[in-house]
Amino acid sequence: MANTATRSDAAPQPGDSYVQSFARGLEVIRSFSAAAPEQTLSEVAARSGLTRAGARRILLTLQTLGYVQSDGKLFRLTPRILDLGFAYLSSMPIWNLAEPVMEALATRTGESCSAAVLDAQEIVYVIRVHTHKILSLNLGVGSRLPAYCTSMGRLLLAGLPDAEVEARLRASELKARTRHTLTGIDELMREIRRAREQGWCLVNQELEEGLLSMAAPVYGKGGEVVAALNISGQANRTDPEQMLRAMLPALREAAQTITQLLRASGAR
Amino acid sequence: MANTATRSDAAPQPGDSYVQSFARGLEVIRSFSAAAPEQTLSEVAARSGLTRAGARRILLTLQTLGYVQSDGKLFRLTPRILDLGFAYLSSMPIWNLAEPVMEALATRTGESCSAAVLDAQEIVYVIRVHTHKILSLNLGVGSRLPAYCTSMGRLLLAGLPDAEVEARLRASELKARTRHTLTGIDELMREIRRAREQGWCLVNQELEEGLLSMAAPVYGKGGEVVAALNISGQANRTDPEQMLRAMLPALREAAQTITQLLRASGAR
Repeated sequence: MANTATRSDAAPQPGDSYVQSFARGLEVIRSFSAAAPEQTLSEVAARSGLTRAGARRILLTLQTLGYVQSDGKLFRLTPRILDLGFAYLSSMPIWNLAEPVMEALATRTGESCSAAVLDAQEIVYVIRVHTHKILSLNLGVGSRLPAYCTSMGRLLLAGLPDAEVEARLRASELKARTRHTLTGIDELMREIRRAREQGWCLVNQELEEGLLSMAAPVYGKGGEVVAALNISGQANRTDPEQMLRAMLPALREAAQTITQLLRASGAR
Repeated sequence: MANTATRSDAAPQPGDSYVQSFARGLEVIRSFSAAAPEQTLSEVAARSGLTRAGARRILLTLQTLGYVQSDGKLFRLTPRILDLGFAYLSSMPIWNLAEPVMEALATRTGESCSAAVLDAQEIVYVIRVHTHKILSLNLGVGSRLPAYCTSMGRLLLAGLPDAEVEARLRASELKARTRHTLTGIDELMREIRRAREQGWCLVNQELEEGLLSMAAPVYGKGGEVVAALNISGQANRTDPEQMLRAMLPALREAAQTITQLLRASGAR
């Protein structure tokens, strides 16, 4: 294993020490969270599945590189970590184009508005435009939700071939998050096909009681779905029919504007 | 070198292959940007200072781990990268506490509002609350600016001892970004000491022509400055005196509220 680290032209394999050190480093970064903002060496080891010696080596490496700081006992991430996510966001021209359109949409509708992309069975938030209404979910950029029970998720899945959609649903833990959540493959496939046909998707309290959400697709140059845009609302202030009538045209228009801006910019 | 990779209990050194593979991987991630959203192997190698073989090894490793995707020729980052920044943001309870306070501040003042922390000679944006006025600077979370010519930067520097402030100024490239920018160590030290004494800082068009900015500090449990909050405005809509009169009390109040929330939460 020590040997492969010197053969820098070889394609890396999962068991490769080069891949492993990198993978472990990223796991250590991901072991920090709201529940574990500061961790001891032992806690990092336990959460990332490393030995104490291995965790120590990674933590000291991260500290050498400025991504972790420590008082000798407790370790903490530094803001330098944000550079990595920033590299992604700034490298995707779509997000700079989309943000002003989404702000206008949030102002026009008075509801929070987000954009997300698909990663395996989950959606990842890439833009959040808040209104000043308090939502029970605090979902910042980078946060994740399962695709099967969210409007953006179903719409993003709808951009894939049926066989792929079904494979991803089978790989998901389909649990009833509320009494409304659909959890059967057949009924989910039906909803996803419907989203594909009509070009939008509404999910009524399947993620969380009281939460309504409506999504529309942003298309890339080749006609593929590259992102979803949504508006969320609260069931005690609006009902699905009212939401569709009042806000669906504005949502679809915003998604189309972003699609056109993308095309005009020549960006992907 | 290959040998040290197996001594997993040794403290890593900068020349260490374990540190190097990780550092190179992160450099490759950072080589992607708005100017280089998709790169060939050769471009990544050139931008990150690696050989083609080394860049290939890192790119394939990142691809194996799901952080990079490729059509065989062009490489692109995936949204999974956002998990890393999200680990930082969610591990710092201050940002969850601060966001609603900052949204209320932006609504009350009608101006954009941000929070930043210090990293060496730069400030790093951690929260941005936009209003719908267009600013010439598009500064998302994770973006950086030099500390010496920004209101948040001077205020964050003011939280350090004088000798440390001076060392960081000397390590900065002090250039006149506008005709108003202070670039002398002595005059910058004077401004930073004043910010420390008065507990706030205003910078008038030193970063960019037309841009005014005002900052106030958030303190940690030990009384140390942990973050700065700012409000920015445009010189053609407001002047410094008007900005101070109309918005400084609200800004300082918001910063104090966040300081108190931090203390009450027991979080750092």
